[in-house]
Amino acid sequence: MPEQTERPTLEVCLSPALLHLYDLAQKIVVVIDVLRATSTICTALYHGAQKVIPVDSVEKCMEIGRQLGAVTAGERDGHIAPGLEHGNSPLEYPASFIQNKTLVLTTTNGTRLLHMAKDAEEIVIGSFLNLSAICAYLLSRNKPVMLACAGWKDRINLEDSLLAGAIIHRIKSHFDIQCDAALIVEQLYEATHHRLMEHMQQASHYQRLTRHGFQQDIAYCLTIDGANVLPVYRDGAIALA
Amino acid sequence: MPEQTERPTLEVCLSPALLHLYDLAQKIVVVIDVLRATSTICTALYHGAQKVIPVDSVEKCMEIGRQLGAVTAGERDGHIAPGLEHGNSPLEYPASFIQNKTLVLTTTNGTRLLHMAKDAEEIVIGSFLNLSAICAYLLSRNKPVMLACAGWKDRINLEDSLLAGAIIHRIKSHFDIQCDAALIVEQLYEATHHRLMEHMQQASHYQRLTRHGFQQDIAYCLTIDGANVLPVYRDGAIALA
Repeated sequence: MPEQTERPTLEVCLSPALLHLYDLAQKIVVVIDVLRATSTICTALYHGAQKVIPVDSVEKCMEIGRQLGAVTAGERDGHIAPGLEHGNSPLEYPASFIQNKTLVLTTTNGTRLLHMAKDAEEIVIGSFLNLSAICAYLLSRNKPVMLACAGWKDRINLEDSLLAGAIIHRIKSHFDIQCDAALIVEQLYEATHHRLMEHMQQASHYQRLTRHGFQQDIAYCLTIDGANVLPVYRDGAIALA
Repeated sequence: MPEQTERPTLEVCLSPALLHLYDLAQKIVVVIDVLRATSTICTALYHGAQKVIPVDSVEKCMEIGRQLGAVTAGERDGHIAPGLEHGNSPLEYPASFIQNKTLVLTTTNGTRLLHMAKDAEEIVIGSFLNLSAICAYLLSRNKPVMLACAGWKDRINLEDSLLAGAIIHRIKSHFDIQCDAALIVEQLYEATHHRLMEHMQQASHYQRLTRHGFQQDIAYCLTIDGANVLPVYRDGAIALA
């Protein structure tokens, strides 16, 4: 079956602490941090932001914000971090506010993962909000793919695993999948996608966010194609392809 | 609901590279390496072996084997390692051969995980072969549990994830589960347990083992309660409780 051997590979990495096991060179890495970094990035760009600059500390966020006259955003323990202007909720970034602006965003898990994936051929941003755009892009490129989940402080989480499963569910017939983590999340998605929100209520992150009053965020972040754009990370900033 | 808060926790760690994220003190750790270390250990003890000594190198295996007059076993790349007498297949250890003997076993993933779990309150050995014994024991102890999967060279694998899911499926109502990996593998098991062998044929390890002619091993290692004993790791050796 010559066709099969010519398909590019598709792998899943469920925690940043496992990413060193994989060679990312020549791969398209899809960075996934559903609650809420990659959902917020997709939303801001969908609503016309010029670009999003992800940084790993509040200090860097404030500094770059000052330099560029940009909107600064970030949370620590569920509250806007002291010195920043906005939080991590995608609902804070409607077009009326973010259009034509630059957003400097500090997140813990997502930003770290972007930096870890620097050897990749390309890095794109994935969320349920741009599921179709991501899948269409991966199919059009025909290159090996790594779906890289941010998780929570290196632990595997449900929502990022579910999105990886959703992507695989849609495009698997075009890829060569020799990755058990991919088989696992695909089964997870197939078994639960008809009751995604209900299933998410068991997740550790759901409980963490609802304690801080972010139930609406979760429902929005699970909306398939709610902000269907293709954000690409290049030279330290994320913009539409 | 006071009952609920008094339930012990149950967590799953899908790769040894993530084990450092968890505090194992006061927990019962179930070490899982379905293909084939923990299946072979259960089988040898079920068939009357006195004990199994897990070691991490061929040299140590030969040395302890000489000292104790024990059976030495281990493979490298699918073949009996030079200097050792037997392989890692559970089918090599019928009662007629292993009864009353000590087995010194060198495995890569499983042995390393046993050493990594040394801070645990107790370490027990899990496989599909002793699923009921493991579940009964965990229920009887009423202590926090960590299901620790050996994986393959730190990558997550399907068979160990499935066994973790099978254990959770049976005992979850008695535990407090705040662990997304546990939710994921439980869904995986529930979605696939009626066609476990068929599902396993997609696994990376299945393909690795069948290349070396171990199809029979896989079918045996998926046999629920095929060697239903409770192996406990203590002071460097594994014996029945």
